[in-house]
Amino acid sequence: MKQPPDEWLHHAKEPCLLPLGGAGEIGANFYLYTYQGSWIAVDCGQGFLNDAPGGTGTTVPSLDALIDLGIQLDALVITHAHEDHIGALPHLWSRLNCPLYATPFAQHLIRDRLDNRQTWPAMHQVVAGQSYRIGMFEVEWIPVTHSIPEAFGLAIKAGDRLIYHTGDWKIDPSPGVGHGLATSRLQALGREGVDVVVGDSTNAPVAGHSVSEQQVAQGLAKTIQPLEHRVVVSCFASNIARLAALGKVAQQSQRFVTLLGRSMWRLYHAGKACGYLNDFPNPISPRDAGFLPRHEQLWICTGSQGEPEAALSRLATGLHPSLELEAGDHVLLSAKTIPGNELAVERLINALLRLKVDLITSRNALIHASGHPCQEELALLYDWLKPKRLVPVHGEFRHQQAHAQLAMRKGIECQIVSDGELMQLAPTLQRLGEVPHGRWLVDGHRLLAPDSALLDQRRQLAEQGLLQVRIGPGDTVKIQAPGLSLDLATLHQWLQTQLQSGTPANPSRLKVQLERWCWQQWGKRPLILVDLIPNE
Amino acid sequence: MKQPPDEWLHHAKEPCLLPLGGAGEIGANFYLYTYQGSWIAVDCGQGFLNDAPGGTGTTVPSLDALIDLGIQLDALVITHAHEDHIGALPHLWSRLNCPLYATPFAQHLIRDRLDNRQTWPAMHQVVAGQSYRIGMFEVEWIPVTHSIPEAFGLAIKAGDRLIYHTGDWKIDPSPGVGHGLATSRLQALGREGVDVVVGDSTNAPVAGHSVSEQQVAQGLAKTIQPLEHRVVVSCFASNIARLAALGKVAQQSQRFVTLLGRSMWRLYHAGKACGYLNDFPNPISPRDAGFLPRHEQLWICTGSQGEPEAALSRLATGLHPSLELEAGDHVLLSAKTIPGNELAVERLINALLRLKVDLITSRNALIHASGHPCQEELALLYDWLKPKRLVPVHGEFRHQQAHAQLAMRKGIECQIVSDGELMQLAPTLQRLGEVPHGRWLVDGHRLLAPDSALLDQRRQLAEQGLLQVRIGPGDTVKIQAPGLSLDLATLHQWLQTQLQSGTPANPSRLKVQLERWCWQQWGKRPLILVDLIPNE
Repeated sequence: MKQPPDEWLHHAKEPCLLPLGGAGEIGANFYLYTYQGSWIAVDCGQGFLNDAPGGTGTTVPSLDALIDLGIQLDALVITHAHEDHIGALPHLWSRLNCPLYATPFAQHLIRDRLDNRQTWPAMHQVVAGQSYRIGMFEVEWIPVTHSIPEAFGLAIKAGDRLIYHTGDWKIDPSPGVGHGLATSRLQALGREGVDVVVGDSTNAPVAGHSVSEQQVAQGLAKTIQPLEHRVVVSCFASNIARLAALGKVAQQSQRFVTLLGRSMWRLYHAGKACGYLNDFPNPISPRDAGFLPRHEQLWICTGSQGEPEAALSRLATGLHPSLELEAGDHVLLSAKTIPGNELAVERLINALLRLKVDLITSRNALIHASGHPCQEELALLYDWLKPKRLVPVHGEFRHQQAHAQLAMRKGIECQIVSDGELMQLAPTLQRLGEVPHGRWLVDGHRLLAPDSALLDQRRQLAEQGLLQVRIGPGDTVKIQAPGLSLDLATLHQWLQTQLQSGTPANPSRLKVQLERWCWQQWGKRPLILVDLIPNE
Repeated sequence: MKQPPDEWLHHAKEPCLLPLGGAGEIGANFYLYTYQGSWIAVDCGQGFLNDAPGGTGTTVPSLDALIDLGIQLDALVITHAHEDHIGALPHLWSRLNCPLYATPFAQHLIRDRLDNRQTWPAMHQVVAGQSYRIGMFEVEWIPVTHSIPEAFGLAIKAGDRLIYHTGDWKIDPSPGVGHGLATSRLQALGREGVDVVVGDSTNAPVAGHSVSEQQVAQGLAKTIQPLEHRVVVSCFASNIARLAALGKVAQQSQRFVTLLGRSMWRLYHAGKACGYLNDFPNPISPRDAGFLPRHEQLWICTGSQGEPEAALSRLATGLHPSLELEAGDHVLLSAKTIPGNELAVERLINALLRLKVDLITSRNALIHASGHPCQEELALLYDWLKPKRLVPVHGEFRHQQAHAQLAMRKGIECQIVSDGELMQLAPTLQRLGEVPHGRWLVDGHRLLAPDSALLDQRRQLAEQGLLQVRIGPGDTVKIQAPGLSLDLATLHQWLQTQLQSGTPANPSRLKVQLERWCWQQWGKRPLILVDLIPNE
């Protein structure tokens, strides 16, 4: 696709959407809107690159489009504080260099992660139900329910047009902590006339209605109450309602709560600071908890995804300094497995079963609920909003397609958008062109394009190793070969023969010869560095 | 656990099992049996290491136990030709240096992979129903049904004791090609008295009965018959019955068959050579197939696991030289996703949907069946064999545990065994000790222990890159830094300052200084090689 026409990039007559992360992929949500030369971004999340050299790497949306097209954002607005919506901020916000609008809980978590030595742009605290004028837009935060406190949809006005950006949401009549879903405000928006919804597609392939956090709280209580030994629950730390529910269960079952894992403590403090854990019992320190009788212990820990460094994996492998699981202990996985983590979770489960603990998962007890809308919820939202058009985002193509099919059955115009596509949102959905897009890999203090030649070199180093040969004056040879099981003597001898063959050593010829030799000897193609110091 | 007593290793009074691959893990099946100083091995398969440097690596069982304890095998016997049962042979058989017993189909596939320049030990062709005296054992191949032709269980006699080693199996009344399950022979074994079963646990957590290949054949026919455009089916190449069924469907629906993918052609030739594809229509070449009308094409291809280099992924990304998929083409995934491949398959599915093909999976049509026994089948087998004891293998701990629970409910004595544990099989199950075990990573022509320091170096190279500094006479500096985004000028300047500081350059001090500098500048810890050539 071509680059969009300049007049649309710099003075769009109608509001346009430009997703630079999150459309056609899971993670790294970063949605830009433009109208009459003004630009805002919604969310700025992190993602993962599974085939980074050395394993999984953290990624952030590439800002190439902004740099190449000279786009300056009027603001970055945040819907909620999940890492796939705010996690890129420590790496990108200073480069975006624009004010940020977020609610207190999100602000708390963002500040937690910023490097205090750097100067950051202004941070504005927003209040639900109030409208904020940002550039040529007017933005209102609409309370929704999700698996984290302070989740919001955004009503974005651009001239006469009204866009509803759903953020992550579900219909949860009792979300446990925080506000409920602003149903009547959504219905009012429907009466005003919604031109387009830009919406969460995560669970669009799933029939039915998501489970409420209240049901999960009851399920946890019912499951934990009769348990006789130590209870260990692993869940996403950001699910403050889940934490609150577990605090209540602990009190009801005369257990003391202990938290394990850095992010569990971080989110606990954020939840406490923002008033969401007022009734939560004071957690006792992991060091003290070990002295309690087993049946008085309830541990809440990180690591439900089988992350090897997180608390639960270390418990499962007996490597946690604070707690040693015993046979008969009850371990609850109050989470689902995020795609890509299946093997790690399988490893975790096997390790736990070997310890003869009683493992309880969401397969055999009601102890987890998704935070995203299933088909019935999507249908209800469209009944309330009566939108003319839908652009499904926040999902892979498969999810976007299921979302579009559902909406089209309700007579709503749909277009599937991919990262980098500028889409006109009114009076009809129209692709205007494509801009540079992709991800940057967080690599130490730097951000690298995943197709960088540097990463290819690192992949070669990983798979094939390195052979460094220095030939000094008088044909002295020094060989270094990290990562290769090298028969040094043989190579030395071979090199000497080459060097004594009469023709003067030539680095590029020597490199080719070494490459051939390595392939024959080891079946490997190491990266070869030849350093030839000429005779003086 | 301690090493087993010498007398058991060198002259076991009762038959013992020593799994060196496949017990407590998926893949790399390699089960040793010993009795009165005689040793045989059952199967010798490959596995995968997911966190190998550079991604997923092929592994084979480690032979450290055989080397350390001086064990010489009397033979290697093969149950069937799946890669997790024969795939380690090209790497290990010459080291095992013992005769091999296998049926023609397995032999065909094993020979396919051997390096003809090497001399290999003898290969004996076995016939079902006949007993073979091997060392102190007598082994009979018992026909079973599985997702590959010529699958066998093994009746292993050691003195008065009778062991039934199940191999991979299911109860399939119509397996499509090849022999059926030898039910009456199994019942006869039960009457003789089976001391112990060593058995497949893959589907032990799954209730019910596996689906028959015949039902899959009907499902494929019913699904494909009404389709209007090009049909592309991806399945495991070794499932010859599936190939045969697709050949029949092609003929019935007036389509020409084309095969795509190297292993598809390899298995087609093996199936043909062994008489399992006599009715299969002659496949036409991929080059010619493109000239046929779309509705006359049926392509059978590799790549159901989303392997990026396999045929289906290349079709999905438009990179296959022989075929370009068109909107409306029908793509059938006639396979399940092997754990660990979820993300790759998800990527494949999204890419296919983007092409607007009609995607049909085993979720919405009966087009795949598992090759392993579910709970009803396991129960039936134990009714036939009436074994006194069970050692569940071929599975992770979770699968072994489910298998043991099922058998214990039937009053069968059970012990879960892990790789490296020597287990006495009669008159009771008893762990006698542990021997060295693990996997070797295939690395070019070499085999490396996964905990080799070389691999750690390669992981560091992958994640952190390399910095090579050569300081020659007169403080000349040469820097090479593959894989690092390096500000050469700054580093040069900094190095010159260090070198001019007066104290003579010292490689190890310089290395520490460089490490610190890299961490401050880039947040990276590259592997640092310092090559200091002293002034003459």
